[in-house]
Amino acid sequence: MAKKTSLSGFPEWSPAGRIIEQSILDQLRRTFELHGFASLETRAVEPLSELMRKGETSKEVYVISRLQQQSQEARDADLGLHFDLTVPFARYVLENAGQLAFPFRRYQIQKVWRGERPQDGRFREFTQADIDIVGMENLALHHEIDLPLIMIEALNALPIPPVTVMVNNRKIVQGFCRGIGIEHVEDALRAIDKLDKIGQQAVVEEMREHGISADHAHSLLELAQIRGTENISESVRKLGVEDPQLAEGLEELEHLLEETDRRAPGQVVADLKITRGLDYYTGMVYETFLEGHEDLGSICSGGRYDSLASDGRRSYPGVGLSIGVTRLVSRILSNGLVQASRSVPTCVLVAVNSEQTRPTSNAIADQLRSRGIPTEVSPSSAKFGKQIRYADRRGIPFVWFIDDQGQSTVKDIRSGEQITAEADQWQPAEDDLMPTVEWQG
Amino acid sequence: MAKKTSLSGFPEWSPAGRIIEQSILDQLRRTFELHGFASLETRAVEPLSELMRKGETSKEVYVISRLQQQSQEARDADLGLHFDLTVPFARYVLENAGQLAFPFRRYQIQKVWRGERPQDGRFREFTQADIDIVGMENLALHHEIDLPLIMIEALNALPIPPVTVMVNNRKIVQGFCRGIGIEHVEDALRAIDKLDKIGQQAVVEEMREHGISADHAHSLLELAQIRGTENISESVRKLGVEDPQLAEGLEELEHLLEETDRRAPGQVVADLKITRGLDYYTGMVYETFLEGHEDLGSICSGGRYDSLASDGRRSYPGVGLSIGVTRLVSRILSNGLVQASRSVPTCVLVAVNSEQTRPTSNAIADQLRSRGIPTEVSPSSAKFGKQIRYADRRGIPFVWFIDDQGQSTVKDIRSGEQITAEADQWQPAEDDLMPTVEWQG
Repeated sequence: MAKKTSLSGFPEWSPAGRIIEQSILDQLRRTFELHGFASLETRAVEPLSELMRKGETSKEVYVISRLQQQSQEARDADLGLHFDLTVPFARYVLENAGQLAFPFRRYQIQKVWRGERPQDGRFREFTQADIDIVGMENLALHHEIDLPLIMIEALNALPIPPVTVMVNNRKIVQGFCRGIGIEHVEDALRAIDKLDKIGQQAVVEEMREHGISADHAHSLLELAQIRGTENISESVRKLGVEDPQLAEGLEELEHLLEETDRRAPGQVVADLKITRGLDYYTGMVYETFLEGHEDLGSICSGGRYDSLASDGRRSYPGVGLSIGVTRLVSRILSNGLVQASRSVPTCVLVAVNSEQTRPTSNAIADQLRSRGIPTEVSPSSAKFGKQIRYADRRGIPFVWFIDDQGQSTVKDIRSGEQITAEADQWQPAEDDLMPTVEWQG
Repeated sequence: MAKKTSLSGFPEWSPAGRIIEQSILDQLRRTFELHGFASLETRAVEPLSELMRKGETSKEVYVISRLQQQSQEARDADLGLHFDLTVPFARYVLENAGQLAFPFRRYQIQKVWRGERPQDGRFREFTQADIDIVGMENLALHHEIDLPLIMIEALNALPIPPVTVMVNNRKIVQGFCRGIGIEHVEDALRAIDKLDKIGQQAVVEEMREHGISADHAHSLLELAQIRGTENISESVRKLGVEDPQLAEGLEELEHLLEETDRRAPGQVVADLKITRGLDYYTGMVYETFLEGHEDLGSICSGGRYDSLASDGRRSYPGVGLSIGVTRLVSRILSNGLVQASRSVPTCVLVAVNSEQTRPTSNAIADQLRSRGIPTEVSPSSAKFGKQIRYADRRGIPFVWFIDDQGQSTVKDIRSGEQITAEADQWQPAEDDLMPTVEWQG
């Protein structure tokens, strides 16, 4: 169903694949709106200066320019396609702060672009579904607990295997580094972030290259290996490092684990090696894994940030999580984890006896549609066998016939059952009205 | 509500504006799916060679390139952002023809980009909503009648003034040109297309520059002024030009007018000056105007094409129409034609007595959400007055209070009415459940 196109990294789905993606997006939107998140879309482009300021390496950015650019318009060259939805959202908040009510909750489902080398689960164009809550000057801790729980609810509602959110608090690593005397905290964070990818030894080497002593590196590795749903503070305390920020981070994490244990038992696990590559996180950070598909990497990541958006006078701290929709859908489609019941919205095909009676078929179709039943009229008045084949190829479950006396019958072409029917009364089974998607796992 | 951003031509809406846009997109999707159109999305980029081959002037295209492009990857420079959804769809059809069932009906709602000078109603980034029906080798005429009727149904369902679809048939102009002996038909078409913009005299001048004689130019102008819902053939015949293609075009147009007069009386008018700038149209062409907002230009245009997509062996003729959603929404927002009942999805704000009782408020909120009621929990346990103000600023209609005995009351903060309630039973009025949008005209 997931057809490879000629452009690597720019995936496109079949009509049936798109039905699956759309049902996932609809369900996400539903959960986000139930939790009071307002929809936003931002433009696809941002000034390059903005895009290169925030954490990501600059080589991933696509620059846009007009084909026949005039020199006085050269400033266009300073635009790039956004690589995530957080940076544009932060800019939107700053530009519109006067009109927004804080804390402001928004969801945003849009394409983003990164000029990376395409791999399995890694694309150059992909859809993200983000939720963020942003305050003015401050944002209470409970938002850092609520947000991953909302994402768990959203993901639990999808036809996918169970998810686990791995969580850490930046204050723990930062406080720990300070406690043992490591200066280059960012370097340490970036090294730990690669633990799963490159292994312990390479991480230690990378830290040492950045001037971190072997002892310190090994202490950090011990910290990074702590993982679980309880006794996190105890395990950290055994490492014998004291620091007020470390203590604060541990307290916040313990509080989160208590709450999430009650509200989503077993779905949130502390994992102190989760650091996220981006510089701007200051509190909780999250990564989310799909059971049996851990090789895919995180399908939903984010964290707390304090200074992503500031107009110099006020700061707008926030917490956000982003689902990699394309990564998820790509895996679902390529592994056939979910099937759509048909490849078109159409529930009924109204047969056409001859081109002269097409208006009669059109009228029946109008009646069915006015009652919310997706209906097509047969494109040709060929033999009924051919018209039925038209429906069959698309998975359209019903074909509607009108005889010369104007009496209608409707045939379920799966069972062959055919009954007389009135267009102002007949109703398909609920499951047949629109295409449905079903977990095959 | 429509806030000007710092980047001209790249509009962004407020949360309330986005609710209006989203409700319009939802309604369009609903109509398209009722008519059996399958959703598709194509990638944002196409090879430049494809983009420059099809009708549009090349200067409108945005080229993308990676910021730190390696020389061996220079082919990336050959990609541009799509300027419409027809060219990418034609390419998709060719690439996937083996997997698609023809005639294939799809809708596509996506952003497109054009490097044009921004003006009122003309943007550099904007959303289009397209429907197309594409056949293999042939496509019956009735599709050229059905398609504008489906768009009329879709537009009639929106909270906007009435629309009129102006229609012409390319065969009429082409046949007429051939009948009087004009060779450069494309030049004539492009000149006539500008009639409303530059006036009769300038059109004649432009034709003369392209070697069309004054007599011929004036004949064409007479043809272009024919307009109405009946007697079109008669009016054309009076001009005394004979040509088989002209006769065919007139017959098709008359047939369309008969059908549309029955199915959407008064909403379809023949207008022989409608030619559409693009080269690829071969049959009916359409433009759509909003009553009282004709200055906006066409909000829904398209036509029949025979050779947009061909793999050299087979051709895939089609007919399509495209709504300029951003143009429409921009006018709606800037003129305040439609209002959203609130700026957030939230129906109920559950008040929080103290941070210790936040879990109780969370539990009530979960119960309401499980019954489909969008609910937020107050972000702070400040005084109730402040919590009510939080709801009021967002237009959230209800605030839910829980007293020390666990008894709930819900207050409609618009009327001040407060009643006792149970979270597993209380139901808001249907109009209050989700934000609604209403025509203010």
